[in-house]
Amino acid sequence: MEIWFSENQTGNFGIKARVKSVLLHEFSPFQEITVYDTFEFGRMLVLDKAVMFTDKNEFVYHEMLGLVPVFAHAGPENILIIGGGDGGAVRECLKNPRVKHIDLVEIDKRVVEVSEEFFPLIASMLKDERVRVIAEDGIEFLKRFNAAYDIILIDSTDPVGPAEGLFKRDFYESAASALKDDGIFVAQTESPFFNANLIRDINMILRELYSKTYLYLASIPVYPGGLWSFTAGSKAYDPRFVNRAYEGFDFSAEGLGLRYYSPEVHSSSFVLPNFVGEILK
Amino acid sequence: MEIWFSENQTGNFGIKARVKSVLLHEFSPFQEITVYDTFEFGRMLVLDKAVMFTDKNEFVYHEMLGLVPVFAHAGPENILIIGGGDGGAVRECLKNPRVKHIDLVEIDKRVVEVSEEFFPLIASMLKDERVRVIAEDGIEFLKRFNAAYDIILIDSTDPVGPAEGLFKRDFYESAASALKDDGIFVAQTESPFFNANLIRDINMILRELYSKTYLYLASIPVYPGGLWSFTAGSKAYDPRFVNRAYEGFDFSAEGLGLRYYSPEVHSSSFVLPNFVGEILK
Repeated sequence: MEIWFSENQTGNFGIKARVKSVLLHEFSPFQEITVYDTFEFGRMLVLDKAVMFTDKNEFVYHEMLGLVPVFAHAGPENILIIGGGDGGAVRECLKNPRVKHIDLVEIDKRVVEVSEEFFPLIASMLKDERVRVIAEDGIEFLKRFNAAYDIILIDSTDPVGPAEGLFKRDFYESAASALKDDGIFVAQTESPFFNANLIRDINMILRELYSKTYLYLASIPVYPGGLWSFTAGSKAYDPRFVNRAYEGFDFSAEGLGLRYYSPEVHSSSFVLPNFVGEILK
Repeated sequence: MEIWFSENQTGNFGIKARVKSVLLHEFSPFQEITVYDTFEFGRMLVLDKAVMFTDKNEFVYHEMLGLVPVFAHAGPENILIIGGGDGGAVRECLKNPRVKHIDLVEIDKRVVEVSEEFFPLIASMLKDERVRVIAEDGIEFLKRFNAAYDIILIDSTDPVGPAEGLFKRDFYESAASALKDDGIFVAQTESPFFNANLIRDINMILRELYSKTYLYLASIPVYPGGLWSFTAGSKAYDPRFVNRAYEGFDFSAEGLGLRYYSPEVHSSSFVLPNFVGEILK
């Protein structure tokens, strides 16, 4: 007998993965949560039928979301992550020893609990003393802060369901207010192959808010088309480069457990194929 | 009614695409050939149940296979392409005006005919006077040449079926003999996520043959994991960079119809994520 999970990613295209077993299936107040054990990728977290990550390749998304901003910023002491209840982005940000505090604001506390139970290597730093996990709507949370954070990361699901408001102008403006004047903002911004209009719209808004707004890319096998975008914005730091403050810092893969990110990958991920550059024009 | 094409890419992982209609299905003497019209990607060529390309994203593979070597080489006058009967690599190579002649050696002449009928924009340059299309086994063809070509491209299917011999040491040695001493060799070398051992083996062989052997990557949505590798080797040219001979050359996307490739993308495609670099150690 063969059991296959299948995700219809665009309506007309999708992926499928052979399943050993279903480890969890439930409906939280916010979304449908499923954990599969797959033959190809190990365990896989699926929210509202969309793959979030798998054991085997979560490192790509989490390293590229977390490490690009923390190493572009000379002193990223205070970080806010909205979404990302799994803890992957937290784990990566803490690889920069200059990080002193992270607020993780996840609307669905079941995501945190499920990650701690089924993905202990991803959730490994959620109990670190530098991390505060807050179960709250990120949109409401943000409104209470002004110039408070060095870095704000939006580690959201797709722009449907609970994350819909995280792709809107009001929210981006609110995040810009909560960010210090020299802060760096990064959001996951979907697929350049399938979500060109969304990427264009978000970049237009962020360019109004940050003079240095740039798109970067990473290869994630279980996301639509295998190529994913992030948008970084800052008024002060150029997010495309590792900050000079880290000259002499040991980025060796062994020490930090880096499987995708390096200072060279950091910069080259901002070099865009022509069709992606065209989206932003 | 919905009809879906599905490719089981690894045994435990695959893609699916919704189909409007099946335009062609036949068995040539070498392989099963199917042309689908899909909702997401337009027309799609499938050989032995594996997607070769689609109208919508063939540009990535063909630009990156063809343009990297022709712009790393100062005078790529005489080119041999083994496989690639669709004509996509031919079309790209001819974007360098220094190219004077291309021998395209495709074992299955039905691939050429099917491409001319169903993919006219891909096959567009096959009738160009600089191009000679030869229906022959590339392995046998190569044995007749010594120091004849400036560039040899291996545009093969996966290493099963008719292309199996194109991934073997004998073949690579034969290609090295047919290449001029300052020539550039490039082969498609499968997925870094799923074919690490193959990539390692090929690179070890090619390093013995070429002092400058480097892997590069491109994002192709319909290939396993969405990320694909090519390996380039040369004794003379550094394939990682556009040759100085092209200073002042107009690479603007408008003129050459470049949708992925640029000189910056050329170089950054050789910057490898750590897990890919590890494969090559």
